[in-house]
Amino acid sequence: MTGGAELGYDVPALVGMAIEDVITPALILDLDALERNIRRMGEFVRTHGMRHRVHGKMHKSVDVARLQIEMGGAQGVCCQKVSEAEVFVRGAIADILVSNEVRQSVMIDRLARLPAMGAQVSVCVDDPANVAELSEAAGKHGTELGVLVELDCGAGRCGVTTPEAAIALAQAISNAPNLRYEGLQAYQGSMQHIEAHDARAEAARQAHAIVREVVDALRAADLNPPLVTGGGTGSYAHEAASGLYNELQCGSYAFMDADYGRIRNEQNERLDVAEWENALFVLTSVVSTIKPGSAVCDVGLKASSVDSGLPVVFGTPGVTYTGASDEHGSLDDPDSALQPGDQLCLVPGHCDPTCNLHNWYVGVRNGVVETRWPVSARGKGY
Amino acid sequence: MTGGAELGYDVPALVGMAIEDVITPALILDLDALERNIRRMGEFVRTHGMRHRVHGKMHKSVDVARLQIEMGGAQGVCCQKVSEAEVFVRGAIADILVSNEVRQSVMIDRLARLPAMGAQVSVCVDDPANVAELSEAAGKHGTELGVLVELDCGAGRCGVTTPEAAIALAQAISNAPNLRYEGLQAYQGSMQHIEAHDARAEAARQAHAIVREVVDALRAADLNPPLVTGGGTGSYAHEAASGLYNELQCGSYAFMDADYGRIRNEQNERLDVAEWENALFVLTSVVSTIKPGSAVCDVGLKASSVDSGLPVVFGTPGVTYTGASDEHGSLDDPDSALQPGDQLCLVPGHCDPTCNLHNWYVGVRNGVVETRWPVSARGKGY
Repeated sequence: MTGGAELGYDVPALVGMAIEDVITPALILDLDALERNIRRMGEFVRTHGMRHRVHGKMHKSVDVARLQIEMGGAQGVCCQKVSEAEVFVRGAIADILVSNEVRQSVMIDRLARLPAMGAQVSVCVDDPANVAELSEAAGKHGTELGVLVELDCGAGRCGVTTPEAAIALAQAISNAPNLRYEGLQAYQGSMQHIEAHDARAEAARQAHAIVREVVDALRAADLNPPLVTGGGTGSYAHEAASGLYNELQCGSYAFMDADYGRIRNEQNERLDVAEWENALFVLTSVVSTIKPGSAVCDVGLKASSVDSGLPVVFGTPGVTYTGASDEHGSLDDPDSALQPGDQLCLVPGHCDPTCNLHNWYVGVRNGVVETRWPVSARGKGY
Repeated sequence: MTGGAELGYDVPALVGMAIEDVITPALILDLDALERNIRRMGEFVRTHGMRHRVHGKMHKSVDVARLQIEMGGAQGVCCQKVSEAEVFVRGAIADILVSNEVRQSVMIDRLARLPAMGAQVSVCVDDPANVAELSEAAGKHGTELGVLVELDCGAGRCGVTTPEAAIALAQAISNAPNLRYEGLQAYQGSMQHIEAHDARAEAARQAHAIVREVVDALRAADLNPPLVTGGGTGSYAHEAASGLYNELQCGSYAFMDADYGRIRNEQNERLDVAEWENALFVLTSVVSTIKPGSAVCDVGLKASSVDSGLPVVFGTPGVTYTGASDEHGSLDDPDSALQPGDQLCLVPGHCDPTCNLHNWYVGVRNGVVETRWPVSARGKGY
């Protein structure tokens, strides 16, 4: 295929095209696998009587979020940044939680404008001064913001660490005009990727002991949290079993990645992370085979994030991705089977920052491009 | 400042604004430092009677490239991808080298269209089959492409490895219609970041011994290379002293980063990398100070690449960046001096992939925003 102009200069693929003609590097979504993942999580959440605000920070895509709502029964979307929330509001997502603190005054102002655009919008706090800022901004715009107390249940990042601090914050939210006390945010990010099942289960028990103490204290103070929300792809089964949480915030389950895949590969891990199929791939082409036994491809660290390990070659046995520079990937190809221009599918090490590198998802079914979705909130980091 | 709407929803800053009002995370350019770096490299290249095609893969910015040409006397721009070259051609850069192999047929076609848009365009090859593809595409579009033989002088990536292969390629280029034999591309990327001066000098000697053997062989075969091009911020002084190279391809010198900064910090390193000032910063704000002795800021690995180490706090003694998650950075703040909303300047670990995460450069002088430049080729990875 040589139709450069026909293809367009800023998109990697046209609908109806064979995957072999997609310009690389490109983010590929296996639509069958994606839909199975979304339906399966929807069934899990429904069976357990929970809500699910899917984490949009992972895919940054209005289209994927709508699929998760329509096909997976999700109640809404989480994100980490006001600029992401703005994209989801414009995309007609009706229930959005910024699962993070917002402290720049200009962004507090922008957050407080959003409910007037037709969405229910919530945010987290860990500082009483922030409660006052949010209340004032919502008052200025005639809106109401949902506010959750963020609890640090072991990740060591944002969030209060004592029942007393949680009570003081919940009280401040309840007392503040223009704010709606929505409950408790309790997400333990650092336990999600613990590979050994028993160690991960123990980390979840420790996290949930902290959550239980705070929930009990809030109830005793007549500040029963309407929502206790958290959980990720590595821990959601534990949150569901805890009896504490009534909302999940999973993200990676929809796409999967190589880091979560390492959990899947252990036999004793078939309980939870095992269920998810690889739906996200970085399509790459071979650019050089000049050296016997190796090759070079066109995906480096500007096309696939390496913070959680290198990408993994999918579906081409014997070929291994061994190193990333800015625009190149080094491949071991012991049989020297690869030729320049050959395509490979890579499973990225970490889905979230990889999606944030690209402008487009290329949705593929049966080897044919069925759809092309923008990474709507790409680069929305503020 | 609360003027969210006035500021606009997709830019981090307005011209004339104080740096304190810039929305974070944002890429900041210290324009004084940038201009000093550009003038200093221009003087070095002029003094040594060399050409300089500055590496645009680093900044992906037409505006920075124009400054390097107008203020630093650069002859043109290198880049790694055809999609980057398209941006630089549209930005009226007249001399562009794609310092890489192009193997997808659609991208060969797009490359071959570019000279008709008014630029001199060159590309590298390491495979005779690619020479034929380029010749045919240029013929189709009635254009001429410059072509360089890529030599692997130690990086172990693309490029031929023997004088015989180099001669065969140079001969094929010379014989092919629509192609201009431009010489030899010899860049040793893996030696750029060797911290110890003596080890780096030794790596350069080894690389240049390989280059010398191939240049001598090409001359003996009556294929004297018009250009011998290569060199980066970690090695350019060695290329200049080698008597082999007549063109440099430096990129990082203009912005610098923490990885190159580690070289600068050694006393015996004042020969070359020492000269460059930090001109690029990732501006961040504190989002949580709930835990004494530490803080959390809003720059994680979606705003500053961690492939070559964590970002380093600049100008705020005592505060250390200790860990990155997707949207958060963990800070050690032993004096608990930071407050929510406080700004910090971070020097990114690696400039190239960090710039590729952002949409805008915010150019600052004396604490005031003087300009805002798009990261014109951000995400142009194909």
